[in-house]
Amino acid sequence: MGSSLEVLQSALESMRDEVNQALHDLIQSEVEAGAGEVALEAGRVLNAGGKRLRPILFLLAYQLAGGEKKEDVMPLALAFELIHTATLVHDDINDEAQQRRGIPTIHAQAGQAKAVIAGDWLFVQGFGLGGRYSAQIVSIIARCCANIAVSEFHQLDHVLNLATSPEDYLSIVRGKTAGPFASGCYSAGLVAGLEDEQAKALERFGMELGIAFQLVDDLLDLRGDERMGKPRGADVYEGKMTLPLIHALTLSHGQHRERLSQLIEDFSDKHFEELMALLERSDSMEYAEILVRTHLERAQAELDRFPDSEAKELMLLITNIVKDRHA
Amino acid sequence: MGSSLEVLQSALESMRDEVNQALHDLIQSEVEAGAGEVALEAGRVLNAGGKRLRPILFLLAYQLAGGEKKEDVMPLALAFELIHTATLVHDDINDEAQQRRGIPTIHAQAGQAKAVIAGDWLFVQGFGLGGRYSAQIVSIIARCCANIAVSEFHQLDHVLNLATSPEDYLSIVRGKTAGPFASGCYSAGLVAGLEDEQAKALERFGMELGIAFQLVDDLLDLRGDERMGKPRGADVYEGKMTLPLIHALTLSHGQHRERLSQLIEDFSDKHFEELMALLERSDSMEYAEILVRTHLERAQAELDRFPDSEAKELMLLITNIVKDRHA
Repeated sequence: MGSSLEVLQSALESMRDEVNQALHDLIQSEVEAGAGEVALEAGRVLNAGGKRLRPILFLLAYQLAGGEKKEDVMPLALAFELIHTATLVHDDINDEAQQRRGIPTIHAQAGQAKAVIAGDWLFVQGFGLGGRYSAQIVSIIARCCANIAVSEFHQLDHVLNLATSPEDYLSIVRGKTAGPFASGCYSAGLVAGLEDEQAKALERFGMELGIAFQLVDDLLDLRGDERMGKPRGADVYEGKMTLPLIHALTLSHGQHRERLSQLIEDFSDKHFEELMALLERSDSMEYAEILVRTHLERAQAELDRFPDSEAKELMLLITNIVKDRHA
Repeated sequence: MGSSLEVLQSALESMRDEVNQALHDLIQSEVEAGAGEVALEAGRVLNAGGKRLRPILFLLAYQLAGGEKKEDVMPLALAFELIHTATLVHDDINDEAQQRRGIPTIHAQAGQAKAVIAGDWLFVQGFGLGGRYSAQIVSIIARCCANIAVSEFHQLDHVLNLATSPEDYLSIVRGKTAGPFASGCYSAGLVAGLEDEQAKALERFGMELGIAFQLVDDLLDLRGDERMGKPRGADVYEGKMTLPLIHALTLSHGQHRERLSQLIEDFSDKHFEELMALLERSDSMEYAEILVRTHLERAQAELDRFPDSEAKELMLLITNIVKDRHA
């Protein structure tokens, strides 16, 4: 089998529309139930777009696993997207970010106090939906969210820590970015009725894809591709130790390492070209690109266990989209 | 029947020990599982004491409703205490409070970013436990938490709003303080196997008790009784419109109202006696006390539907403790 790229892309597009509609309806019904400004503020960020990669993947993982009733898995997919958005709202407070998805962040618009609470509200909505599932799935979601918090603590401790190792980095990425991809795919497989062992293949798929996703994010930050509302080098500016930086610091010596440290510790856009030249010397961008391919290949290999289907083709397409994305 | 006060108090004491032990064990097992600093920081505040009124009440409501397996309701009781503590951690950020339960707040100790995340972690732990129950209970918990957020938004909008009405006040209190008492008692009744209609009597009990609890809190703030880590008049200082202030503003006229407005808008401890004298003129403290008694009587009346038991005696004792508490 094998559908044309155009057909597949249009299938993804219509899944995204469906997710967007469901999220829009959820906010609408909360507003109608009297939630007022907190739902409006949270909804403003929730509905400002985003690729919906996570919920679409979870819907696909469910179909790949043989699930046939989309309404059974939709609340799970939305739960993860709501929780994801909650972490973005709280991250934006801590990063003092002014923009998200091209619009003002909640704390920029309504103040820090309301942003903290609006994030909580999004968490609650997510857990309300996720709590409908079996005890095993609830525990997967809770473990996933707890790991996000644990990893965020580690990430804060590693801000501007030039001794951050690739292992530290991967542990943070597994908890914060890749964990939710993994837990969502795993849970979706269980909802479809897979045995735990089979569902764990989907968990590994999500983990590998999520790691690749974060590595691409690191690369995009340095490449300065157009990312909505985020300037080139924003991660460096915030002191986030991304993999290219960690790799370059590990391989560089003497005056190059010293200069690299200075640039990272006191980054400004006028030193951007110099930073990139130093990363070039240690092939650090290329190294990250190779890792992206490795993790995506591992993700794809996990899908081999499952019979061919449109869902599988779409999941493979998404792994390619992750590799080639520019925003 | 009727046990001696001493026996009842000792029964409450041992329930509190049990709750404390379970919370301590939960943090311990998370630390052992590798949660590290986020669990330690969250645990520091969680285990710093507190009356555990909520979880004890929910254990009692379960027993009153005929439940006999405490281990079936304990996760629910802990869930509400964890969620309650999560809201305290986030409130303390927004109020810039330095102390909670006699120890430094998380944001004072570890910074705002970690405090936001530690609060999220507590929410997640609470939802993980609450998510083990039926879809109806999960939805009660989610609705309760969403209402907390909605009411906190309203409360923020009413800071220093001298036109805040008693209705505004009660609506905020129902959502933020009394709602969790109500939802916990309601859920505990359902866990015990009550029909929805009977469990709703427990919900009303919790709502009435919770309103009384908040009114007593308002009174204590002004009475300046020893409240751990909170100075006299802290609510007034933060611009919170408590019922005695709302009542006094409603009843006062002319120069008295003008002076009262000035004192509230620009409060400092040196004007404390003058503020109290103005509240005295309109009998506003007494008014709040009468409301405390009314709501407690209504709470007690809901318990009449249930057969006599030690649990019932203990719940009646708690209504008296709420009335007479000094901290």
